[in-house]
Amino acid sequence: MDAPTVKPARVSGVKDLLPAEAILQRDLFAKVAAVYESFGFVPIDTPCLERWSVLTGDEPDFDKSIFRTKVVRGAEDRALTDAELSGDDTALRFDLTVPLARVVSAYPELPRPFKRYQTGKVFRGEPPQAGRYREFTQFDFDIIGSSSVLADVEVIQVMYAVLTTLEFERFTIRFNSRRVLNGFAAVIGCENKANEFFRILDKVDKIGPDKVCEKLAREPDNEYDEGALALKGPQLAQVLEFLKQSTGSTDETFDYLSDLRERMPGNRNLELGVSELQTIVECLRLLEIPESFWAADLSVARGLGYYNGPVFEAHLDDMPKLGSVFGGGRFDGLTNRFIPNSNISGTGASLGIERIITGLQKLQMVELNSTVAHVLVTVFSAELETASLVLSQQLRSMGLNTELYMGEDSSLKGQFAYARKSGVPFVVFLGPDEVTNQTVQLKDMRSRQQETLTALACGEKIRQNL
Amino acid sequence: MDAPTVKPARVSGVKDLLPAEAILQRDLFAKVAAVYESFGFVPIDTPCLERWSVLTGDEPDFDKSIFRTKVVRGAEDRALTDAELSGDDTALRFDLTVPLARVVSAYPELPRPFKRYQTGKVFRGEPPQAGRYREFTQFDFDIIGSSSVLADVEVIQVMYAVLTTLEFERFTIRFNSRRVLNGFAAVIGCENKANEFFRILDKVDKIGPDKVCEKLAREPDNEYDEGALALKGPQLAQVLEFLKQSTGSTDETFDYLSDLRERMPGNRNLELGVSELQTIVECLRLLEIPESFWAADLSVARGLGYYNGPVFEAHLDDMPKLGSVFGGGRFDGLTNRFIPNSNISGTGASLGIERIITGLQKLQMVELNSTVAHVLVTVFSAELETASLVLSQQLRSMGLNTELYMGEDSSLKGQFAYARKSGVPFVVFLGPDEVTNQTVQLKDMRSRQQETLTALACGEKIRQNL
Repeated sequence: MDAPTVKPARVSGVKDLLPAEAILQRDLFAKVAAVYESFGFVPIDTPCLERWSVLTGDEPDFDKSIFRTKVVRGAEDRALTDAELSGDDTALRFDLTVPLARVVSAYPELPRPFKRYQTGKVFRGEPPQAGRYREFTQFDFDIIGSSSVLADVEVIQVMYAVLTTLEFERFTIRFNSRRVLNGFAAVIGCENKANEFFRILDKVDKIGPDKVCEKLAREPDNEYDEGALALKGPQLAQVLEFLKQSTGSTDETFDYLSDLRERMPGNRNLELGVSELQTIVECLRLLEIPESFWAADLSVARGLGYYNGPVFEAHLDDMPKLGSVFGGGRFDGLTNRFIPNSNISGTGASLGIERIITGLQKLQMVELNSTVAHVLVTVFSAELETASLVLSQQLRSMGLNTELYMGEDSSLKGQFAYARKSGVPFVVFLGPDEVTNQTVQLKDMRSRQQETLTALACGEKIRQNL
Repeated sequence: MDAPTVKPARVSGVKDLLPAEAILQRDLFAKVAAVYESFGFVPIDTPCLERWSVLTGDEPDFDKSIFRTKVVRGAEDRALTDAELSGDDTALRFDLTVPLARVVSAYPELPRPFKRYQTGKVFRGEPPQAGRYREFTQFDFDIIGSSSVLADVEVIQVMYAVLTTLEFERFTIRFNSRRVLNGFAAVIGCENKANEFFRILDKVDKIGPDKVCEKLAREPDNEYDEGALALKGPQLAQVLEFLKQSTGSTDETFDYLSDLRERMPGNRNLELGVSELQTIVECLRLLEIPESFWAADLSVARGLGYYNGPVFEAHLDDMPKLGSVFGGGRFDGLTNRFIPNSNISGTGASLGIERIITGLQKLQMVELNSTVAHVLVTVFSAELETASLVLSQQLRSMGLNTELYMGEDSSLKGQFAYARKSGVPFVVFLGPDEVTNQTVQLKDMRSRQQETLTALACGEKIRQNL
């Protein structure tokens, strides 16, 4: 009763991590968590499955593509019926921020400010493309319940500390304020279509300022085409000037902003936003974070609808096409969908694990290694199998990661070929002579030197040479 | 444009880990991974989303309830149409073993034996009940490409090492062989309905031997009722005798098995199975794993269809109702659904993280702690905010997990209340006098002692008293 053959294929737009990359990810998680904890962030964990209503906020203009889920029993590969789907309100989270807002709303006993970090898979229903996955890993940190700009400053501090800890030498953390953008949208006369305006501005990195203006100038195709902003020449000139600040110095940007404020007195958003940016810059200077690592950049918009204060992103300077490795911002009021008028503040950022792993590999900053074993204990024969078993446990109890050979090719040649393939640095050999003499043969796979030792001396020797 | 209010509720049958439990889980992952690595297991990571055909093996008698997924764009909470579902072949994995079989089949470059560990969420569509989740975390280790019983012995060694490392003092690892069970099914005359026979046997822990016999005796309801085994008196007597071995000593079990073999000469399954169990027992004795921690137990069947050699499970003796914390077995040939006749061997086990966390808590083996910060730096006033910001970065650079207060209640009372609630052991205070004198006030929250120190001495003092 053999089953039919199935292709061992992945779903499109997802990634497998084989040992070398998974070891890298394991180290990465530990280092990043240590940085987050050094600022007092504590972990939480939430399910991948969330209620549809929680994820969408039951907002009629929710327009993400997300994965709905439905329990199906048995083998039939078939479509779900309407009756089956109705009442099953589950879907896969698309980020870790909405689940955080749910947790903060559901557990009033949590302290406030609540500083949490979380890592996990998130799921997006977009068509897969290079560097964009449908399932990927985020590693977020957020501060809930602080409206202080100090919290936004800390988000930048943490991003800087993480990227420095990972030994990136050239990266830029760019930040802006949604309030500045809102203020500017009012200058342009787009305040009623601000989200669409930001979505287009956000593309400047990919398509350049001219194409951005083209998109902003687009006329409606028909009377229902609400996405068209139809900006005209003078407005577009202002947009170009605004985006140009992206290439200037921080001081030039503030000069420009102060001009803009003079031209638009009473634009409260602009006023608040500029003051936010000024405080952030002052604090970063006070903290002596070198200016080569950060920039106030008015072109930073971040696509997500829920940001409403400072927004942040970080790029690796040597990999401009990778996209941002960190992205985040302030999302005050995200709990309002659960608790009306709760107006709880939140700010934070998300690290993209896949992109960081790609960055570390492409920049050749890490040596890939597919083994964690320090030593392989070979098996001479079926009779001496148990001697090797006991020896391997002895070496393990000395703190060495010890692998006992148990492959199908029992020849010594086959065992050494396995050792070379796996990359284990030491191999121990135990034949009848060694068993009689209570010794072992130790081979250093790098120097190719071999020597006869007691088991204890062998363990010591390996430990000293790791 | 406020969105409608949504209940901040979880999906049924899933779990949130708030900081105290998430910190526990973080420590648990690190300890378990270290044990797995001490045997040379390396990590991999695979997506939660898998192809439906990969998960079911396109087997017509696949009968699990699993979560199918389907991308839906936008806000409309509606059923999926047939057209939408067709061609979208994705679902959520129900274990980490089938994805492992896919990985081994898809990447022939992996070494063989391939010893991998993996942790991640798995999803079951069963109705939720106490202690059984629809989304939960497994932490698996498996050896692929070894048919040696040494590999099965190692599975038990690892289970023992993990539970000992977690400081459980009373647990039992029970093992059996599916070959013994297959041989016994032939003795009873059930070899054609072996899976149903094992499924019922496996319930003995929950319902006792008498109820097991009742279920085995059930007559078919109609001619299509293939689940009914309709065992008679003499067969049931043999089953009772077989299950009774569960309470005897290992040597008594082997005496019984040797009787059974004499009664059934030529029962190859029984022969092979008994020999497997004997080798395992010999090795465990050689490794000096105390016999109080393990037992060859003929009542262990494990429900999963794909096991075909030794099977394992571990229980905490002090929490009999918790269910098994480890479960596993040998699953030779699981890759055959992807590569016909590849017959690759596999054996391993899976640790249930939620159950271990429950066990550690219920047995009061861990102190729950909701903070990772060593010290909280308070903020005296808006003017002195930046002095506290710089001090906190200074303490952090000394290796202390340092939290800068940034809550809405800026009174000193409010800040100390926050410190007490979060459980941070030290609080640093920095007012105008301290700034003038270049000192800080350090308060030990446990002893309630307070003293004036330089920032450097303060950091040292905290470090010495953690």
